[in-house]
Amino acid sequence: MTQSDFRGVFPYLVSPIRPDGEVDAEVLARLCEDLIGAGVHGLTPLGSTGEFAYLSWAQRRRIVQVVVEAARGRVPVVAGVASTTIADAVGQAREFERLGCSGILAILEAYFPIADEGVFTYFKAVADAVSLPVVLYTNPSFQRSDLSIPVIERLSRVANIQYIKDASSNTGRLLSIINRVEGRIKVFAASAHIPVCVMMIGGVGWMAGPACVAPCASVALYELCRRGDWARAMERQRLLWDLNQAFARYNLAACIKGGLQLQGYAVGDPLPPQAPLTAEGVQEVRRALTAIGAL
Amino acid sequence: MTQSDFRGVFPYLVSPIRPDGEVDAEVLARLCEDLIGAGVHGLTPLGSTGEFAYLSWAQRRRIVQVVVEAARGRVPVVAGVASTTIADAVGQAREFERLGCSGILAILEAYFPIADEGVFTYFKAVADAVSLPVVLYTNPSFQRSDLSIPVIERLSRVANIQYIKDASSNTGRLLSIINRVEGRIKVFAASAHIPVCVMMIGGVGWMAGPACVAPCASVALYELCRRGDWARAMERQRLLWDLNQAFARYNLAACIKGGLQLQGYAVGDPLPPQAPLTAEGVQEVRRALTAIGAL
Amino acid sequence: MTQSDFRGVFPYLVSPIRPDGEVDAEVLARLCEDLIGAGVHGLTPLGSTGEFAYLSWAQRRRIVQVVVEAARGRVPVVAGVASTTIADAVGQAREFERLGCSGILAILEAYFPIADEGVFTYFKAVADAVSLPVVLYTNPSFQRSDLSIPVIERLSRVANIQYIKDASSNTGRLLSIINRVEGRIKVFAASAHIPVCVMMIGGVGWMAGPACVAPCASVALYELCRRGDWARAMERQRLLWDLNQAFARYNLAACIKGGLQLQGYAVGDPLPPQAPLTAEGVQEVRRALTAIGAL
Amino acid sequence: MTQSDFRGVFPYLVSPIRPDGEVDAEVLARLCEDLIGAGVHGLTPLGSTGEFAYLSWAQRRRIVQVVVEAARGRVPVVAGVASTTIADAVGQAREFERLGCSGILAILEAYFPIADEGVFTYFKAVADAVSLPVVLYTNPSFQRSDLSIPVIERLSRVANIQYIKDASSNTGRLLSIINRVEGRIKVFAASAHIPVCVMMIGGVGWMAGPACVAPCASVALYELCRRGDWARAMERQRLLWDLNQAFARYNLAACIKGGLQLQGYAVGDPLPPQAPLTAEGVQEVRRALTAIGAL
Repeated sequence: MTQSDFRGVFPYLVSPIRPDGEVDAEVLARLCEDLIGAGVHGLTPLGSTGEFAYLSWAQRRRIVQVVVEAARGRVPVVAGVASTTIADAVGQAREFERLGCSGILAILEAYFPIADEGVFTYFKAVADAVSLPVVLYTNPSFQRSDLSIPVIERLSRVANIQYIKDASSNTGRLLSIINRVEGRIKVFAASAHIPVCVMMIGGVGWMAGPACVAPCASVALYELCRRGDWARAMERQRLLWDLNQAFARYNLAACIKGGLQLQGYAVGDPLPPQAPLTAEGVQEVRRALTAIGAL
Repeated sequence: MTQSDFRGVFPYLVSPIRPDGEVDAEVLARLCEDLIGAGVHGLTPLGSTGEFAYLSWAQRRRIVQVVVEAARGRVPVVAGVASTTIADAVGQAREFERLGCSGILAILEAYFPIADEGVFTYFKAVADAVSLPVVLYTNPSFQRSDLSIPVIERLSRVANIQYIKDASSNTGRLLSIINRVEGRIKVFAASAHIPVCVMMIGGVGWMAGPACVAPCASVALYELCRRGDWARAMERQRLLWDLNQAFARYNLAACIKGGLQLQGYAVGDPLPPQAPLTAEGVQEVRRALTAIGAL
Repeated sequence: MTQSDFRGVFPYLVSPIRPDGEVDAEVLARLCEDLIGAGVHGLTPLGSTGEFAYLSWAQRRRIVQVVVEAARGRVPVVAGVASTTIADAVGQAREFERLGCSGILAILEAYFPIADEGVFTYFKAVADAVSLPVVLYTNPSFQRSDLSIPVIERLSRVANIQYIKDASSNTGRLLSIINRVEGRIKVFAASAHIPVCVMMIGGVGWMAGPACVAPCASVALYELCRRGDWARAMERQRLLWDLNQAFARYNLAACIKGGLQLQGYAVGDPLPPQAPLTAEGVQEVRRALTAIGAL
Repeated sequence: MTQSDFRGVFPYLVSPIRPDGEVDAEVLARLCEDLIGAGVHGLTPLGSTGEFAYLSWAQRRRIVQVVVEAARGRVPVVAGVASTTIADAVGQAREFERLGCSGILAILEAYFPIADEGVFTYFKAVADAVSLPVVLYTNPSFQRSDLSIPVIERLSRVANIQYIKDASSNTGRLLSIINRVEGRIKVFAASAHIPVCVMMIGGVGWMAGPACVAPCASVALYELCRRGDWARAMERQRLLWDLNQAFARYNLAACIKGGLQLQGYAVGDPLPPQAPLTAEGVQEVRRALTAIGAL
C-alpha cells in the first residue's frame, strides 16, 4: 500500500445496529457492495457519521470486520480509531490492521483540553502501532481537541502519517496546511467544505457522509475535477451542495441513515438518545436526493 | 435509603491505574479509609476528577467494587454512570446497584448535540433502571450537552431523581433551579462554585475533587455552614478557595492526583495523553495545601 | 470624596430618548428623584442598561447633566465612560468630572481583541485623566475585551481605581479578585450574581438594572445583608431573584424600560433596531414586580 | 451606477490619523492614487481594516471626503456605514451619498444580540435612505450580530441591496448564499476566504485589507480568475495566501498599516489602545510582501 493509493471519494459508512445491539451485517455488506459498484474509491467505517462515539468496542470491531469482508480488496478500507487514551487507541489500531484494513483514520477524543504535546504523542503512538498509512482526522465542531498547524507539521514527518481530513468549515485552513506540509501530507475534504474548491487548491478527494447516499454524483464530480473541467464541475457541485447543507443542519448520522432508508436500506435510526431525522429533515433530504437523481 | 441521606462533603475520588492498566486497589482503598476517617459524608467514584472518560468499562467496574468494599457501608457510595447511549448507561447503572452502591451520579456524554427530549429520555431511563437515588450531573465546561431548567423541572418529577450537582460557574443558576424544583431536588455545589454561597442559598453540600485532598478543612467548613456560623465559614472559605482556583486552572485529575502524591498517596498521573501536573502547578497546589494545614 | 463613600445599591438608569432624539429630561429627573426617595445609595447613568452603546456623545453628555442636576449632591453619580480609543475615553471622563459627577464607571469597548497591556493602558489613562474614584466595569457577555485578574491586580495599584463591578455570572471569580486585591479595590455585584452571596464574600453593594424598578426591595435587602441577618436576607433574595432572571432572559434595556412603563414612567422603548420587550416579557416582568410589591 | 459596476479588487483602505487626531489627507490621497494606478477596481474606506470602530464621525466623514476627491471618479468609492442605531446609520449613509460615494458598505454594530427582524430593519433602512447600491457586510469574528441566510434572502428583494461581503471563514456559506439569492445579490470574498475559490463558485471579486499592500498581485490574480485560467491562478494564489494568513493572525489594521509603512507610506499605527504590529509580525509581513515582489 503506497501513499498514492488513497484518493477520490471515500463515503463515511453508517453503522446499522439492530434493536438487540447486534450489527446488521447484511444491510451493511449490501451498502458496501452498492457503493463499490457506484465507483467509490474507498470505504471509511467509524467516522462521525458512523457514530463511533455511540458504539461499544465489540460493535466497532464487528463493523470493521463486515466492511473488510464486503470490500474483498477491491477498494481500501480506512477505519476510524477513536479514543481518549493512547493505550486504547493503540489497541484498536492494531486490531483493525489484523482484520485487514488498508488504513487508519485517527481521531482524538478528549474530555479535558489536551496541550499540543499530548495531541502529538497520541497520533504518533497510533501511527507507530501499525504499518498502515494513517489519516489524521479533526472535527472541531464535535471534538474537544483540535490539531494546530504546528502539530500537523510535526506529525507530517512521521513516515506513515500521509493524509489529513479536516472537518472544519474553514477552507483557507486547508490551503495553509497544504502550503506547510506539501509532499508529505495529502488533504481530503469533508462535507463542510466545497469539494470542488478543495480539489482546486490541491486536495486529493473527500471523505464525507453525503457520498454514502450520493455515490454516483460524487464520483462523477470527482472525475470532472480530476480532468480540470472546472466549469462543469461547478454546475454539478451546486446541485450536490444542497445535500451537504442538509447534512450540516441535522445530526449527521440521522441525516444519512434517513437518506439511506429512503433509498431502501434498512439501516435503522441513530442510537438513542439521538433522535431520528425529523419529518422536515426527511423532506429536505428527499428533495436533495431527487434533485441529483439519487432517489 | 431516603432522600435526606445525601448531604455534606462528597469527595470525587481519583482513579489510580497501574502501568499495566489494572486499578491499584490498595492505594484506592487506603484513600477511601482516610477520607472516611476525616469525616466525609460520602464517596463519589467516577466523576470528572475520576477520569471516567478515560477508563474502560472493566476499570470503571473494578473501581466501584473497590470503593464499595472499602466504604463498608459507613458512608454512601454514589458512582458515576456516563455514556453516549441509553443502552450502555442503563447497563452501567444496574451493575453499580448490584455491586452495592447507594446512589448513581448520572452523566450524559454526547458527540452530536442532543435536544431536550433526548436529554430527558436518557436521565429518565437511568433512573428507571435502578431503585437507588439519582444525582443529575451537568458540567458545561467539558460535556457537549447541558441540562436546561425546563428539563430539570421535568426530571424532578421522577421519584428517585433527588439531587443535582451543577458544575457550571454560574451560582445564580443554582438559585433559579432551587426556586423551580424546591422540595423535589436538592442541590450540591461543585468546585467552581463557592461552597459557602451555595449552602447559604439552600444547597445541601458539595461534590468536588478538592475535598479529596482537603477532607478535614472541607468537613469543618460544612459544619460551620450547617450551624449558620457564616462569618467563620467565610474566613475558612477564603483560605480554601485558592485550592479551587488551582483546580480550575489545571487538568482536574492532574491537580488532585498531584496533590495526593504530595500527601503520600501513590495514585500515579492522569492517563496519557493527559499530562501530569506541571512543576508550577505542583508548587501552587503545595502552597494551597500548606496554607490549610493539609500537608 | 473618599473610597468608603461608594457602597450599597446603585441602580443603572435607563436613558429615555424622545422620537426626535432629545433626552427626555423630565422623566429622567423624576426617576432619579423617586429612586433617591426610595433610599438608593447612588445613581449610575450610562451603564449597559442605559444603552451607552446606542447613544451619541451629545445624548450621553445631556443624560449625565440631567442626572447630576436631579441628584443635587444627595447621592453620588457614577457615570459610564465607554469607548474603543483612549483619546475619546479620556475626553468623556474629563467632561463628566466637569459636569459634577462623583465617580467614573470605566468601560472598554473593543472591535479587535486587545492584549492585557492595552487593557491596562486604557483604564490607567481614564483614571489619570480625572481626580474622581474609578469603578472598573467588565461585562464579558456583551464586551469583546475582558479584565484578567493580573490586569486587575496591576490596576488596583492606581490610586483612584477603587472599585470593580464584574458582570460575569461567575461569583467565584469575585472571591478570587477579593483575595488578590483586598484593601485596594472593593467589589460591586451585578445582576448576574446573587447580591446576598456577593455581600457575604465581602462585596460592598451592587450596581444593577433591576434596582431601577425595585429600589425599595433592593435597599431593604442591602440593609439585611449589612446587619448580617442572612436568613431573612435570603428569604427576600429568593423573591427578588425572579426579576434578575427576567433581566437575564431579555434585552436589559427593553426589560427595565418595560418595567418602568408598567410603573408609570414614560421612558419609551430601547433605541431601534433593538426591539421593545415582548408581550411575554411584559407578563414576566409584571409578575416579578407584583410579587415584590413594586407594582 | 448599475449593479454590474462593482466587481474586481476593492482594497480596504487604512485610516491614517495624525497624533492631533486629524486625518492625514496627504498620505491617504497618495495611497488612493497608487492603488488606482495599480489597477484596483474600487476603493473601500471605513471597513474593519479602516478602523471604523475607532474613529469619530468627524474623522470618518473626512476620510470619505479625501478618498472621493482622490478617486476623481476613476473607480467607485464604497464607504463603510456602521452603527448600533438605525437613526445614526441612516444619517451616515445620506452624508456619504452627498459627498459623492458610489456605494455603501453597510455594517450593523451591536451591543446586545439583535433578532432577525431587527437586523432586517436596520439594513433595509440604510438602503432606503440612499439611491446608491448597498453592499451587506458581515464579519462574525468581530461583530456581535450575524446575517442569517433567511435575512439575506429577504434583503435580496430590496432593489438597491445588490452585493454581500461575508468575512466568515466558511466558504461553503457563500455557495449557500449564491444558491439562494442568485441574480439578486452578488458575492465578494473577504481575506478569510481563498479568493480563487470564491471566484470559481461564482463570486465577483474581493474586498480585503491585504489588497491595500498587494494591489498588483491581487489585480493579476483577479484577471487570471476572470479568464478561467485556474491553474495559473492557483499558483499565484498560493504565494499570496501567506499574506492573508499574517492578516488573520494579527490585528488587521496593525498588519496593513505595518505593511504600508514598509512600503514607504507614513500611515502611522492603529489607534491606541490597539498595539502596533509586533516585531515578529513585521518580519512575517516583510517576508510575505517580498515573496510577491511587493517590497
